[in-house]
Amino acid sequence: MNQYKYAARHIDPVDREIVSEAEARQLTLTKPPGSLGMLEEIGNRLAGVAQRCPPPIPLNPHVVVFAGDHGVHGQGVTPWPQAVTVQMVANFLSGGAAINAISRQVGATVTVVDAGVAADLTPSEGLVMGKVRYGSADISLEPAMTILEAEAALDLGVSVAVELIDSGTDLLVCGDMGIANTTASAAIISYFCKTDPSVTTGRGTGIDDPTLARKISVIETAIERASVRPGLSDDPVAVLSELGGLEIGAIAGFILGAASRRIPVIVDGVISLAGALIANEIAPLAAEYMFAGHLSIEPGAGIAIGHLKLKPILKLDMRLGEGTGAAMAIPVLQSAARLLGEMATFESSGVSEA
Amino acid sequence: MNQYKYAARHIDPVDREIVSEAEARQLTLTKPPGSLGMLEEIGNRLAGVAQRCPPPIPLNPHVVVFAGDHGVHGQGVTPWPQAVTVQMVANFLSGGAAINAISRQVGATVTVVDAGVAADLTPSEGLVMGKVRYGSADISLEPAMTILEAEAALDLGVSVAVELIDSGTDLLVCGDMGIANTTASAAIISYFCKTDPSVTTGRGTGIDDPTLARKISVIETAIERASVRPGLSDDPVAVLSELGGLEIGAIAGFILGAASRRIPVIVDGVISLAGALIANEIAPLAAEYMFAGHLSIEPGAGIAIGHLKLKPILKLDMRLGEGTGAAMAIPVLQSAARLLGEMATFESSGVSEA
Repeated sequence: MNQYKYAARHIDPVDREIVSEAEARQLTLTKPPGSLGMLEEIGNRLAGVAQRCPPPIPLNPHVVVFAGDHGVHGQGVTPWPQAVTVQMVANFLSGGAAINAISRQVGATVTVVDAGVAADLTPSEGLVMGKVRYGSADISLEPAMTILEAEAALDLGVSVAVELIDSGTDLLVCGDMGIANTTASAAIISYFCKTDPSVTTGRGTGIDDPTLARKISVIETAIERASVRPGLSDDPVAVLSELGGLEIGAIAGFILGAASRRIPVIVDGVISLAGALIANEIAPLAAEYMFAGHLSIEPGAGIAIGHLKLKPILKLDMRLGEGTGAAMAIPVLQSAARLLGEMATFESSGVSEA
Repeated sequence: MNQYKYAARHIDPVDREIVSEAEARQLTLTKPPGSLGMLEEIGNRLAGVAQRCPPPIPLNPHVVVFAGDHGVHGQGVTPWPQAVTVQMVANFLSGGAAINAISRQVGATVTVVDAGVAADLTPSEGLVMGKVRYGSADISLEPAMTILEAEAALDLGVSVAVELIDSGTDLLVCGDMGIANTTASAAIISYFCKTDPSVTTGRGTGIDDPTLARKISVIETAIERASVRPGLSDDPVAVLSELGGLEIGAIAGFILGAASRRIPVIVDGVISLAGALIANEIAPLAAEYMFAGHLSIEPGAGIAIGHLKLKPILKLDMRLGEGTGAAMAIPVLQSAARLLGEMATFESSGVSEA
């Protein structure tokens, strides 16, 4: 059996009894009820995720940057050359990218996974050589990948998640790199959220009006092309194969792997959200393990977060990707867990209640 | 000369040339221009604050919780007994409060300052015995304190800031504790922001409708009473003496002390914002050193932040005080500085530009 199928079948709901126990515990802590806002909601859900109240503090977070190239790059949807994907992988590995600086600050480790970069990469510490194929095909003309390739991408993500969890990682953070990947992501978000590409599509890394118009038109064409495939709407793996994103498929698998092991996973921008939507279609319970770290200013982000019934934790006007928004939310999750575990109660401290 | 006057006269503007240098540097880093959103704005301002680009990463943050009691408590503006102020000081000192848990997570030290608790406290490590008087008077009936007491509170805050900075603290974080202190804060915010108390006043730690109506009425009475004082509008120290808050005065001084030493200071809820407004009236340049860590759901918070021309960093629906929202923003400021200092440039990394 494919690993992603196995993972999807082994996702239990977040433990609602433990969530209730956490909610009750919040009321005993030395603060006015509800005064920690989202930190309480997050802490309670972390307890349900871990089936433990108070929840363990996730002190071993790991950011995984999934890299892949996109055949749709040939349609002129971005001013950035495709070679930047490879160059940025090297930048991640030498510690010079934004995600590296943020991860150093918040105490997270960074691993890069080649899910489908369109060039051969040199093996290196911190790089998982998981290439499924050399970039996706041009989704405006043909499916991004075969079903077998889509499944391989999903399996890759699961195996990365499971190996990290087996090595002690207690918080997974989704990151992405791939020139033109906001095009595939907007297509996937449009498809699953039934929202017009003109609404979901943004300027990605920064594009002008003609490029934006071209990008929207390319996405419309891709969705129209894919939609003639029989049974597409009931088959998220087929949607991935039509509109992906090798790194998007790997992110979807990564999330399924995390959820199957009851480990929280932070998503942020449109690429990891596209992967999150696929994971959610394959196994709806997976969404219970997701935390939306940051609301990207890419318009598809808010739409996808709403569809997943999540609430963004940070809103810092970021639109970089790499998992930067998700990584910035790590201290929030850690603090939420710590508050639930370490705060004194009214009873233990002798503080009077209102 | 009072220390606060000395500090106020020694606040220079944030260095605009260094801010411009930081803005230019951002464009050379391996990311699309502007894609780090607020992290870029924060990093650039930190450079200007420190007069160094890239700015130092503030790795020695210190949270100071200023505690004081409020005579207006007698008007029934809150269901919490006044004794909770003393009880919570003990909770801070034994590490059981929310601000302790968050500070442990983000690597900050916590100090408590008795600026005006209405009871004698036992000396303890981590407690500064700075009591100016035993709680403020009831502002609905008379001035909160004398001008000399207001000046003593301001001086206390300056001295706490300066001593911490001299001991290596590179980021100051304002915290507060004092039952009924949202009443005094809403009065000060209403006064300086010329906004009706019915708009600025919130439910504090959580009050019902009749208590809220009483609270608003008490604040209206206090402002009407204070406003007959000749020359009040030109004298922020007189406003503090009329409507303060001993801990609010100390927070104002703390901010002036930070700004006079070019050290960034994070404010969060309505109490530290009331202090920030006083600091801003005494020395308008002080606002350039302030960062609004979190937008409290107390309505006065957004009004005060707008008045100070700041932009809230986090919005986590918190309304606890203690400096919890400000402390949660510490990793954001640290990351912002680190990104500016540690990211590779396009030139150094060989990444192609768009």
